[in-house]
Amino acid sequence: MVIERLYIVKIGGNIIDDEGYLKSFLNDFSRIKNKKILVHGGGKTATEVSRSLGIEPKLSDGRRITDKETLKVVTMVYAGLVNKNICAHLQSLGCNAIGLTGADANIIPAVKRKAGEIDFGFAGDIDSNKINSQILNLFLEHWLVPVIAPITHDEKGSLLNTNSDTIASETAAALSDLYETALIYAFEKEGVLNKNETVISQITSEDYRELLENKIIKDGMLPKLSNAFKALHKGVSSVTICHYSDVKDIINHGKTSGTKIIS
Amino acid sequence: MVIERLYIVKIGGNIIDDEGYLKSFLNDFSRIKNKKILVHGGGKTATEVSRSLGIEPKLSDGRRITDKETLKVVTMVYAGLVNKNICAHLQSLGCNAIGLTGADANIIPAVKRKAGEIDFGFAGDIDSNKINSQILNLFLEHWLVPVIAPITHDEKGSLLNTNSDTIASETAAALSDLYETALIYAFEKEGVLNKNETVISQITSEDYRELLENKIIKDGMLPKLSNAFKALHKGVSSVTICHYSDVKDIINHGKTSGTKIIS
Repeated sequence: MVIERLYIVKIGGNIIDDEGYLKSFLNDFSRIKNKKILVHGGGKTATEVSRSLGIEPKLSDGRRITDKETLKVVTMVYAGLVNKNICAHLQSLGCNAIGLTGADANIIPAVKRKAGEIDFGFAGDIDSNKINSQILNLFLEHWLVPVIAPITHDEKGSLLNTNSDTIASETAAALSDLYETALIYAFEKEGVLNKNETVISQITSEDYRELLENKIIKDGMLPKLSNAFKALHKGVSSVTICHYSDVKDIINHGKTSGTKIIS
Repeated sequence: MVIERLYIVKIGGNIIDDEGYLKSFLNDFSRIKNKKILVHGGGKTATEVSRSLGIEPKLSDGRRITDKETLKVVTMVYAGLVNKNICAHLQSLGCNAIGLTGADANIIPAVKRKAGEIDFGFAGDIDSNKINSQILNLFLEHWLVPVIAPITHDEKGSLLNTNSDTIASETAAALSDLYETALIYAFEKEGVLNKNETVISQITSEDYRELLENKIIKDGMLPKLSNAFKALHKGVSSVTICHYSDVKDIINHGKTSGTKIIS
């Protein structure tokens, strides 16, 4: 039996912050012929809205703390402003987008991260086994295109801020029983870059260890790669990290671009 | 053939603004055994967020003008903060809520109101014939509970601010081919009140004309009643205007409360 392919594409903040980039990407995304899911991050708007409302972002070791007021802001910006504008734009391109948080149809229940040395506040951790793949598949079977905001819920009435890279990889993993899942992290660079700023065309788990040891990989790329390997171990068929403008050609024309992650 | 009953309940701003009222109502709503849809209005939070962001609400004859910045705020507050918190709370009560705007799955396409003497800005007018009842029914058939925010879209990429009373009545009308639809406007009063502040138990279209002539009905009640009669003419089976705490008993125990609108 041939299993149908499903693309899970995640776009980051730098694309969302630039209207031109975003529209260009959404135009490309709308033309992907396969079944597909879009996961989006936040972008700077949340920080801007926070500041305008007099809420200073709280960070610990560079990681955001989601207190009660910050949760309100990210819910407004991610689940409201960003998610619904993406959906409206996709609809104008004939792509039947449906914007979702983890609370909607209970697609992604999460667990509030326990306070350790750091209390991250209303931050949610998720697990592919808990993701409601049947409902997501109901949408996919009716050619709806889920657009998922990085907000989940604890099933006790509270929303939770959740890393969008993780939402993408765990959702891809959850749907791997039903589809051949291809996970794509799209961002503003050409892929994972080497010391000399050239694209590394593929990374195995051995390469990954080496790159880590040599401190070539850092910052935002660390969780992406960690999520990528986790996804492969959980049955995701392929993971690619690439420039947002290459997504369409990779999917529709089999172009080899960006960095392929191999388990 | 017996047609299944569907309840469309609309709650207004005064309920949303009070956490106690809202939780009490959602608790009741979650216990309604029939298929159901919740439509919510905005509440004062949008005005508060607007002011905090330095955007003064613009009104013309008491009616809100939705300029570009105000559209951002209502999208954040209605589609994000209010809608997603309602969904998370309903999920905690075992009610499988799915939060939607008109842009999601294209359920409610709208037309931007043409500028006449007043330019209402990004305000959307809707028509039951354009509402995507098939997709709403797909959700209902899978026992999902649509929670609809008062935001629609123009199919050209722009979101539009839309009256929630109208969303409730037009959605009820759109689903009247598939269900016996009962529309309930729930708010903080006991029903439509007479001069002496007692509840008018039923209003026919003749009564309505009289009440209008005698100026007993005014302000927020005018569009509700106008929508109610329109809904009945479009096939909605019953319209009730009642106190939010009576909704459960009206539905589950056939209690006679509030004002019944009769065509």
